[in-house]
Amino acid sequence: MKKIKIGVLTLSDRAHKGIYEDISGKEIAKALDGYLLSEWESVYRVLPDEQKEIEKELIDMIDNQGCCLVVTTGGTGPALRDVTPEATEAVCEKMMPGFGELMREVSLKHVPTAILSRQTAGIRKNALIINLPGKPKAIKECLDAVFPAVPYCIDLIDGPYLKTNDEVIQCFRPKS
Amino acid sequence: MKKIKIGVLTLSDRAHKGIYEDISGKEIAKALDGYLLSEWESVYRVLPDEQKEIEKELIDMIDNQGCCLVVTTGGTGPALRDVTPEATEAVCEKMMPGFGELMREVSLKHVPTAILSRQTAGIRKNALIINLPGKPKAIKECLDAVFPAVPYCIDLIDGPYLKTNDEVIQCFRPKS
Amino acid sequence: MKKIKIGVLTLSDRAHKGIYEDISGKEIAKALDGYLLSEWESVYRVLPDEQKEIEKELIDMIDNQGCCLVVTTGGTGPALRDVTPEATEAVCEKMMPGFGELMREVSLKHVPTAILSRQTAGIRKNALIINLPGKPKAIKECLDAVFPAVPYCIDLIDGPYLKTNDEVIQCFRPKS
Repeated sequence: MKKIKIGVLTLSDRAHKGIYEDISGKEIAKALDGYLLSEWESVYRVLPDEQKEIEKELIDMIDNQGCCLVVTTGGTGPALRDVTPEATEAVCEKMMPGFGELMREVSLKHVPTAILSRQTAGIRKNALIINLPGKPKAIKECLDAVFPAVPYCIDLIDGPYLKTNDEVIQCFRPKS
Repeated sequence: MKKIKIGVLTLSDRAHKGIYEDISGKEIAKALDGYLLSEWESVYRVLPDEQKEIEKELIDMIDNQGCCLVVTTGGTGPALRDVTPEATEAVCEKMMPGFGELMREVSLKHVPTAILSRQTAGIRKNALIINLPGKPKAIKECLDAVFPAVPYCIDLIDGPYLKTNDEVIQCFRPKS
Repeated sequence: MKKIKIGVLTLSDRAHKGIYEDISGKEIAKALDGYLLSEWESVYRVLPDEQKEIEKELIDMIDNQGCCLVVTTGGTGPALRDVTPEATEAVCEKMMPGFGELMREVSLKHVPTAILSRQTAGIRKNALIINLPGKPKAIKECLDAVFPAVPYCIDLIDGPYLKTNDEVIQCFRPKS
């Protein structure tokens, strides 16, 4: 059986230049480690907020490295350099508006500026791409909210079967 | 007075091949029968998940058959063959994001996988198109949530006046 | 220091013809006066529901008049003449879906027809454009819901610093 590969992509001019450590990317990996009982391997990159570079990396992670899921962090705000949702949309065949809606709703319980987050999700080939906000604190609350739907989503796009730890996250697969 | 016509369009490769019966389309017709006091006639079709065929049918139901409302079921998920939202967007002049948002919010109370539903709604000429999910159970809960706004929407796009049964559904028309 | 300029743009065929007074535009100005401690100046226009004219005015308010925020009212419904969201999207580089989602959610507590409102928000250069519904009653409830995130949004797009009155509105700027 092929190993499950998951991309973790941090978008941040400053983290890329080494001005600060990428805590958010590590938060994602830690959260996934908690959720998943299946063995998995991360494909981890830190890139600057450059749309074309982000698109190339997303394509490479999915088409060449075989990731069934790519989780991004950063670049979802309103600033000029924030282009992660645009890069995501450019490489996806289908957009999944429910992910962004739910993540904003959850973050809105903590901060009114949650509506400034433009994060989205989409499908490219047999992979799901999910944008998370950049702030480490928001990573876990957003991923906890949407992850229960992720394993079934990956089933539906003919990705690998993800076994999850019910004590950490209650994922759901409807009987069809 | 012209009779009110409503399209009911089931999108499902398997229902189209006769592998299973189309329960969802019948659920829609039953729900509409309950809501509406106005006499109405359904234009009912079952099609495979083929974007071009769906677009042609939506156009025919509205432009030729004169439907003021078309309710679809199926084809809203993330799978390769799920193309109903794309077909809907392709034939609409205006998109109505509030319908999808509300339906996902309502379904989310029942299953965390509600965020995988990409259903939307939109306006083509004098008709409203609403996508519902494919599962029969989700039909009623989604339609109950959005239908209170449907008669007024159809007023605003110069469609026929829909009389509804207040004991079944509380529709709302603001006094302007 | 340059004075803060905010556009207030009413879209309504009837208000433009003088058939009725533009109460909604005045409601917006009054709400902003309550929120803001910073001195500001409004650039106020009433236009018919013509997409090209609306686009030209939005561009002029931002590119020539130097508005850091433009608040529109009207033209967000499903009717043929309602084109404000389309005009907004046409002149923006980035869309902000969280604004429309939250405003519809808030309005939905009052009327089920809130889902018919297609209002959105977006960024053009260093300015934020927010669509509000047309009805005077809905102005305040929508603006109260999203305004807490507006000053920080304008910080992020390198606009002027807006000082607000904490006794009227609790705006939020995260410490980064």
